[in-house]
Amino acid sequence: MAHTRLLTVEPIDSVFRALSDPTRRQVLERLSRGPASVSELAAPFPIALPSFLQHMTVLEGSGLVRSKKNGRVRTYQIVPRRLKLAENWLARQRDRWERRLDQLDAYLIELKEKHT
Amino acid sequence: MAHTRLLTVEPIDSVFRALSDPTRRQVLERLSRGPASVSELAAPFPIALPSFLQHMTVLEGSGLVRSKKNGRVRTYQIVPRRLKLAENWLARQRDRWERRLDQLDAYLIELKEKHT
Repeated sequence: MAHTRLLTVEPIDSVFRALSDPTRRQVLERLSRGPASVSELAAPFPIALPSFLQHMTVLEGSGLVRSKKNGRVRTYQIVPRRLKLAENWLARQRDRWERRLDQLDAYLIELKEKHT
Repeated sequence: MAHTRLLTVEPIDSVFRALSDPTRRQVLERLSRGPASVSELAAPFPIALPSFLQHMTVLEGSGLVRSKKNGRVRTYQIVPRRLKLAENWLARQRDRWERRLDQLDAYLIELKEKHT
C-alpha cells in the first residue's frame, strides 16, 4: 500500500508544496481578503511577470486558487476548501500527539499512586 | 521588504516543503504516536535506506523532528511546536476569509434593507 501511495501525487502533496514558497503564501494572504487581478497580485513583488505567473500556475495546479478571465483581465480567488485539507491534516497530528501526552500523564499518575 | 523575504528561507518554508511528501507525512503520523528508531520508521517503506534517510534529513532540517543517538540506535521524536507554526498560518488565512464572508453578509443585508 505504501508503495502505491509513493507513486501517486496526492492533492495534499501539491497543497503543501505550493505553501512552501513565501511569494505564494503572500499571494494567498492577499486573496484571503478577496479576489484580485494578476496585476494587483504581482504589484508587491520585484520579480519579472513570467516568474510571477509560474507561481500562479503552481497555486492554481494545487487547487488553492482558481481564476476566471473577464475580457482581458484574469481574476483569482482563493479556494478555502483546499487550505482546510492541509489544516485538517496538521490538526489530526496535533490531536494524536496531545492524546498521547494525556495517556502519559494518566500512566504517570497511576505509577505514582502505586508507589505511595 | 518583499525582496528581502524572497531571499531568506523562512522556517515555515521548510516546514511546508517537508510536509509535501507522503513518505515524510507518514513518518510524522507514526511519530505523533510516540518516538521511534530509524529502523522502525523505515520498516513500512519499500525504499532503500539511504533514500529513506534523506527524508529524515529533510524532516530534521525543517525542525519538525529531532533525533538522539543512544549507543547505535538513533531515535526520532516529533517537535509539535513546528507543526503548530504551519497550522497557525493556515488558521489565520481561514479566519481572514471567514471574516470577509461575514462582512459580505452584512453588506448584502444592508443592501436588501435599503431596497425593501
